[in-house]
Amino acid sequence: MAKATNAKTAKTTKPTILITNDDGITSPGIKALVESVKDLGTVVVVAPDKPQSGMGHAITIGHPLRLTKMNIFEGVEAWQCSGTPVDCVKLAVDKVLHGKPDICLSGINHGPNHSINVIYSGTMSAALEAAIESIPSIGFSLLDYSIEADFTGAQHYARLLVKQILGKKIDKHLCLNVNIPQSPLELLKGLKVCRQAYAKYEEAFTERDDPHGKKYYWLTGEFVNFDKGRDTDVWALKNNYVSVVPVQFDLTHYQLKDKLERSLKTK
Amino acid sequence: MAKATNAKTAKTTKPTILITNDDGITSPGIKALVESVKDLGTVVVVAPDKPQSGMGHAITIGHPLRLTKMNIFEGVEAWQCSGTPVDCVKLAVDKVLHGKPDICLSGINHGPNHSINVIYSGTMSAALEAAIESIPSIGFSLLDYSIEADFTGAQHYARLLVKQILGKKIDKHLCLNVNIPQSPLELLKGLKVCRQAYAKYEEAFTERDDPHGKKYYWLTGEFVNFDKGRDTDVWALKNNYVSVVPVQFDLTHYQLKDKLERSLKTK
Repeated sequence: MAKATNAKTAKTTKPTILITNDDGITSPGIKALVESVKDLGTVVVVAPDKPQSGMGHAITIGHPLRLTKMNIFEGVEAWQCSGTPVDCVKLAVDKVLHGKPDICLSGINHGPNHSINVIYSGTMSAALEAAIESIPSIGFSLLDYSIEADFTGAQHYARLLVKQILGKKIDKHLCLNVNIPQSPLELLKGLKVCRQAYAKYEEAFTERDDPHGKKYYWLTGEFVNFDKGRDTDVWALKNNYVSVVPVQFDLTHYQLKDKLERSLKTK
Repeated sequence: MAKATNAKTAKTTKPTILITNDDGITSPGIKALVESVKDLGTVVVVAPDKPQSGMGHAITIGHPLRLTKMNIFEGVEAWQCSGTPVDCVKLAVDKVLHGKPDICLSGINHGPNHSINVIYSGTMSAALEAAIESIPSIGFSLLDYSIEADFTGAQHYARLLVKQILGKKIDKHLCLNVNIPQSPLELLKGLKVCRQAYAKYEEAFTERDDPHGKKYYWLTGEFVNFDKGRDTDVWALKNNYVSVVPVQFDLTHYQLKDKLERSLKTK
């Protein structure tokens, strides 16, 4: 009984911060994120046991999942999960935290997740899954794929944002897609709230023959930005701002809905 | 030369219809879809070689893909692909069609993809990928998981919609999420343009012990609809309409964008 009361008191004073990612629990990016917000609440990590980049909003239906406790971040409860980033969030809420955290953070991703990347990104799908569950969430991505990337700027802005979101309770479904330029902290111009740029990848699969003479294909592609707006995440990042795009999970295209209602033969 | 001219003439009169799915190339649903639209254009199938349900917008980055020609639908060019539904669309455009089809159809899925399911659905992610590529697309899902499901109603409305979309050129990024109730054709009340209902799954992982005493978890969950609107897909389906939700890939939450622009401390 006393224990329950303590837990409740602790909850009101110290927020619970769930952290996940898609590069896997051993990536430098998640460590940088843990370090940057560790003192702002009780941090619990539930992250994939292997890289899960490009997994989008995949969930694991056809086979079961494993959770393994890890001693990997000093003073922080951490679990590795055999599933996708979205599985991690679902399992964390149901089987690790036995309830909702105050905020869910995902990242810091090694590589960009601006513009159309939000659709393919495991980092952002984990954050969006939390938002669906009424847990405010932020996904962080650094524009640097290197294992030796400098996360100083990303850490500074992660901390600045988390403090504000925890204090403000802006929206229970809040989900932010935050990208940080690959620049020293002193050159970053600050946070900039943006819209998602209309950009896409121009695919060009690389075709090869295997030793048995059969073809196989590697996905490659060139990123092309069609959007010249100065209010987009791509513009902000080019101009050394940290881009912040609020993301929604209502995918209804309302303008097209009106148009279709007027024009579609229904029978 | 004569061949090239013929191909061009054929193209202007007969549209190319790319068909994919997430249940795999051998599922009855994709066969039903092929049969329903076969005479409306030149159908080409590129679909996964195994079930890919719940894959969301996953793409394959870490290993190469295979394409294998199949003789499975009478008089229709068909390929199975070792990747996700999104991979299928990308590969079809780059390596099978060597260009864009006039329309991309996905399904008919065995089971619903209304409301929040659009986020997890491989069927809808394939359709959305086509829309990103400026290919109008439709994903079809029947509210029946059975291998022996009756696709008659779904086929009727698939054909009705495809004919209209091919004729109208409504929007190059058009993407429709179409769900069909599990009812005989004569009881279906027609197409109804809707918005995505706000609904979600209340997760409850089933926890089990393996023969070595280690825990594992199965994802299960109960579908809960929080949305009482009569303009949603869930309402339409309950009332025996075929729901049609236009879907977008700009995930920016514009209302929250305005709010954040006013309230966020940027440095």
